[in-house]
Amino acid sequence: MKSININSKFEKFSKNWNPHQIAVVDDMQVLLAKLKGEFIWHTHEEEDELFQVIKGTLYIQFRDKTVEVKEGELIVVPKGVEHCPMTKNDEEVHVMLFEKLSVKHTGNVESELTVNSYPKI
Amino acid sequence: MKSININSKFEKFSKNWNPHQIAVVDDMQVLLAKLKGEFIWHTHEEEDELFQVIKGTLYIQFRDKTVEVKEGELIVVPKGVEHCPMTKNDEEVHVMLFEKLSVKHTGNVESELTVNSYPKI
Repeated sequence: MKSININSKFEKFSKNWNPHQIAVVDDMQVLLAKLKGEFIWHTHEEEDELFQVIKGTLYIQFRDKTVEVKEGELIVVPKGVEHCPMTKNDEEVHVMLFEKLSVKHTGNVESELTVNSYPKI
Repeated sequence: MKSININSKFEKFSKNWNPHQIAVVDDMQVLLAKLKGEFIWHTHEEEDELFQVIKGTLYIQFRDKTVEVKEGELIVVPKGVEHCPMTKNDEEVHVMLFEKLSVKHTGNVESELTVNSYPKI
């Protein structure tokens, strides 16, 4: 058992839209990701997904609205709800994600952004 | 779907060692708690428990060591491992917990601190 410093872990990678795993809690994982620009529209059919914003402002687009999630805030995207994260003004946003070990970040969509396993850091 | 401001939620309660639920992710929950002084020694036989420190410095005592968890850090206490959270110097520490909906905060121990359900805020 040891403490994990979130910002120190963010220094260990630089690529955007490329989650890294920092912890596992039962069958769920804690991921860090650096987001910049617009991701892809996708749905997680079986899993909820929590985004906690550590730095910057994240925008989660849904089909009927966009929700702003600021530093110190979090949002849960329920399973089955199509969404597309984005950032504005070329800002790199740091998020901590909490989700099932089984989740793929691009959900039901295979894209060039899809990675099949997350590096542990 | 809406954003949840962590510090605003902390303003909604004051009692120490009394977790409040701010979100659910699949079969896990996000709890906020204000900790001050020493809790009780206990074990969660079936569930891991994540502590993320939002304000202050938390100390998790294990039988063989104590781990300091500072603001911006987190720790996972694995299932089956006896532990006792504490704070020092009369500091009130704010933590966010991720754990199974089934978890009791006092684990295998019934104490006057045990609550059987967490208020939703």
